[in-house]
Amino acid sequence: MDAAALWQRYQNLLYYNEGLGFYLDVSRMRFDDAFVEALQPKFNSAFAAMADLEQGGIANPDENRMVGHYWLRNPDLAPTQEIKQNVVQTVDKIEDFTNKILNGTIHPPQAAHFTDIISVGIGGSALGPQFVAEALAPDFPPLAIHFIDNTDPAGIDRILTRLRNRLASTLVLVISKSGGTPEPRNGMIEVKKAYAGHNLDFSKYAIAITSENSNLDNLAKSENWLATFPMYDWVGGRTSQLSAVGLLPAALQGIDIRAMIAGAKEMDSLTRIPDIKTNPAALLALAWYFAGNGRGEKDMVVLPYKDSLLLFSRYLQQLVMESLGKQKDLDNQTVNQGIAVYGNKGSTDQHAYVQQLREGIANFFMTFVEVLEDRLGPSSEVEPGVTSGDYLSGLLQGTRQALYENQRDSITVTISQLNPRMVGALIALYERAVGLYGFLINVNAYHQPGVEAGKKAAAAVLDLQRKICQVIEQEKTPLSLMELAEKAGEVDQVEVIYKILRHLHTNKRDIVLQGNLGEPNSLKISAL
Amino acid sequence: MDAAALWQRYQNLLYYNEGLGFYLDVSRMRFDDAFVEALQPKFNSAFAAMADLEQGGIANPDENRMVGHYWLRNPDLAPTQEIKQNVVQTVDKIEDFTNKILNGTIHPPQAAHFTDIISVGIGGSALGPQFVAEALAPDFPPLAIHFIDNTDPAGIDRILTRLRNRLASTLVLVISKSGGTPEPRNGMIEVKKAYAGHNLDFSKYAIAITSENSNLDNLAKSENWLATFPMYDWVGGRTSQLSAVGLLPAALQGIDIRAMIAGAKEMDSLTRIPDIKTNPAALLALAWYFAGNGRGEKDMVVLPYKDSLLLFSRYLQQLVMESLGKQKDLDNQTVNQGIAVYGNKGSTDQHAYVQQLREGIANFFMTFVEVLEDRLGPSSEVEPGVTSGDYLSGLLQGTRQALYENQRDSITVTISQLNPRMVGALIALYERAVGLYGFLINVNAYHQPGVEAGKKAAAAVLDLQRKICQVIEQEKTPLSLMELAEKAGEVDQVEVIYKILRHLHTNKRDIVLQGNLGEPNSLKISAL
Repeated sequence: MDAAALWQRYQNLLYYNEGLGFYLDVSRMRFDDAFVEALQPKFNSAFAAMADLEQGGIANPDENRMVGHYWLRNPDLAPTQEIKQNVVQTVDKIEDFTNKILNGTIHPPQAAHFTDIISVGIGGSALGPQFVAEALAPDFPPLAIHFIDNTDPAGIDRILTRLRNRLASTLVLVISKSGGTPEPRNGMIEVKKAYAGHNLDFSKYAIAITSENSNLDNLAKSENWLATFPMYDWVGGRTSQLSAVGLLPAALQGIDIRAMIAGAKEMDSLTRIPDIKTNPAALLALAWYFAGNGRGEKDMVVLPYKDSLLLFSRYLQQLVMESLGKQKDLDNQTVNQGIAVYGNKGSTDQHAYVQQLREGIANFFMTFVEVLEDRLGPSSEVEPGVTSGDYLSGLLQGTRQALYENQRDSITVTISQLNPRMVGALIALYERAVGLYGFLINVNAYHQPGVEAGKKAAAAVLDLQRKICQVIEQEKTPLSLMELAEKAGEVDQVEVIYKILRHLHTNKRDIVLQGNLGEPNSLKISAL
Repeated sequence: MDAAALWQRYQNLLYYNEGLGFYLDVSRMRFDDAFVEALQPKFNSAFAAMADLEQGGIANPDENRMVGHYWLRNPDLAPTQEIKQNVVQTVDKIEDFTNKILNGTIHPPQAAHFTDIISVGIGGSALGPQFVAEALAPDFPPLAIHFIDNTDPAGIDRILTRLRNRLASTLVLVISKSGGTPEPRNGMIEVKKAYAGHNLDFSKYAIAITSENSNLDNLAKSENWLATFPMYDWVGGRTSQLSAVGLLPAALQGIDIRAMIAGAKEMDSLTRIPDIKTNPAALLALAWYFAGNGRGEKDMVVLPYKDSLLLFSRYLQQLVMESLGKQKDLDNQTVNQGIAVYGNKGSTDQHAYVQQLREGIANFFMTFVEVLEDRLGPSSEVEPGVTSGDYLSGLLQGTRQALYENQRDSITVTISQLNPRMVGALIALYERAVGLYGFLINVNAYHQPGVEAGKKAAAAVLDLQRKICQVIEQEKTPLSLMELAEKAGEVDQVEVIYKILRHLHTNKRDIVLQGNLGEPNSLKISAL
């Protein structure tokens, strides 16, 4: 395609919304009109399915659930008065609570103000809040947030040690829908113990964000925690950023949550239009479908050229992969779907792996995210006529052009400014694009059966650990690994048993391992 | 394969080194003996090529350079006395300088001690130091490090604003081999300006890590900076962690750099053995080759189950992709090689995208990184007989097992403890694996032509910017976009011109844009 034709294609496909200051360019994805026409019927169905979903249809059939994250930003769309009121009241309650925390009406027993937050949550209860904190928190937020998003003892210790002198003024958010997910439960137990170790009454610091009547909700009520905020069964973790899960930590950091909600609402209305070329979410879904033949054959590399958007790709990694990465489609056919997502930020990643993207294996398509505003206030020049921001912009344009010339396709998302409204809009844009793409490929984008399976697999390993510890305790003489496996009735699990023992041994638990750790059959196992 | 056969395979393939407390398990990569045999000739050549490289052969032919990062940890291997002495003296100089900084012999003009570091560098000059800081820095390091690793004005402002009250006690490391890479140069200019704005004499705070006689070296000398440390043309950015680039920031944070070097040296000697099954780097290269048919057909997902190893996969992303992602092989054939790498940490990512890995598109192989020691000191139980760390371990084992049952292959790297020695060993392990794999697929793993090309493409955009700004300045009446392009003699670049204008306009530079920003042909452009 010559330069003039490419320029024409660019203008034809360019999506722009003046109100949001938002541009989307899919001109460097090499689809043609015939491709768009061929996908039109699938899109018609997808638009209809999304409309049904927004009206409260059971869009998550496996779990027999409605999918209602759209109601969080436009409660008038909610299918019942009860849901509508709950959404409205929760935002009011978050603002009221935040005001009281920030003005000191609610304060810790031994200090006039809270200074920090420990947020305990994983998956959707961490990635959205982390992304938003990095993107939008002021340089000196009223409360500084710290995340425990794993069950790693050393990781938990690091947060607690660094905060040890401020624990008496540190709020704890525990975010867990069921209260049963092991990572946040373990995190909560460890944090609670640390507060007790400092003679602090945990309940005066703790806030639960959870479903009504969950284990966590019941615990918070029985211990009279500072507050509880709701999670809904009609909002999945990865689309919960505009529920209390994301709004409460954002508000406590001084981020304008009403603007975030408004931006999402605005983008929702733009992406509800049932017309591919004037709907930016549909254009994204189209481009993704084209890139990977509707089977995820190419990885989605996401490069925001803006430091504070570093975690956007990690946020999208969950949103896209957990939603689309499915074994079965809605007709129960095995499809092994998905799109792999990765990326950090530009131009930084140009000095890491863009070498491969430019020249190496062509197994990806790129999403550039461009922010037109360089900084608050003017820039001085780093050389005549040129600023640091001009360089950043030039590096993006140059890379996009070079990739295209090397037959590597790209999408460019351009925003005029990074602010809460735009972050809300970006979240809504990708939620809708994932929803539409899910319908295009006929998968349930709103469940995650593999995550449940992962929990079960881990529980089985822990059951095995308890079992072998019992056997070891009861034995008088040292056992070989195989003898131990036999006595536990778990010969098929001998490798897992070996690994459990290696782990217990390193952590000085109640077993003795003799022999060469690298030769499992040489080991003799006994109780301490 | 039944459980007994799989257990036998596990034991046969298990690599263990007691001294390092290091295990490697490739039993869940489904290669057979015939595959290993078939690759043996390629491995023989690769072992020989690596030996030649270590002896100072020109292993980077395009740039006519030796590849000497192995000499950094064993200077006795260096091909000349001069190199050997330089390596030894540099480590001594780093230790001496660090001691003087930490004990206050060298201190800022207005304070008794330095408290912070701003590190300005990108690519290999940032990723290694970032990975090591996250993995090994003490909870309260003697100097806290902050990274400027981009040319993003808002990102630079964020670091400088947060440090504004401590700038008078903040060291600045400027890390750039040539001193000509725009990102660190721009970062340095912006930081220098901030110091001037606080009436601080930048030269009393600044340290250069650079090649002798580079622009940066000359600047540092002419301005009499606090110190300079060397970069060598025989060490590439992505393998520079054990040069001054990585050692100086590590030492200043209180990390034991001699242990890091010793660990790397030890792993170097283990991975020098020319035998696939007793050389862990060869086992890795074998597994990678198997996974992707020697053509990178599967992505490498790296999941360390340890919070402080979060940046390991990002570090490997550069090391692997920039080394292997090449258009041409050593015989100048077009091969478009590479392996895509991504990942954050477990079990966290199990709640993000492991859904897709378990059930979705099978376009990857996994690398689990397991750390046997949970934390310093004992753990309390989160339920009878079970700790947080048992959960982390169980989640890893369960996921590995479930992936395997779903025909997804995995490698497991196990280390007994995370410490400087082990981090050095891990770096050396992957450097060698990448080197061997590079020879297996016959590419130059030590150049990065695409990065240079990226710099040139950006420079062309900036030249275009200067050109159109000149045209606009000289015009009396507003121009249309196409008129502007014509007057600049750059009709083919009209799209880039549009983007430059959009960026200049948003940042209130000396132009006026009238019309609809989303309809390029409606725009009228004039000087302010």
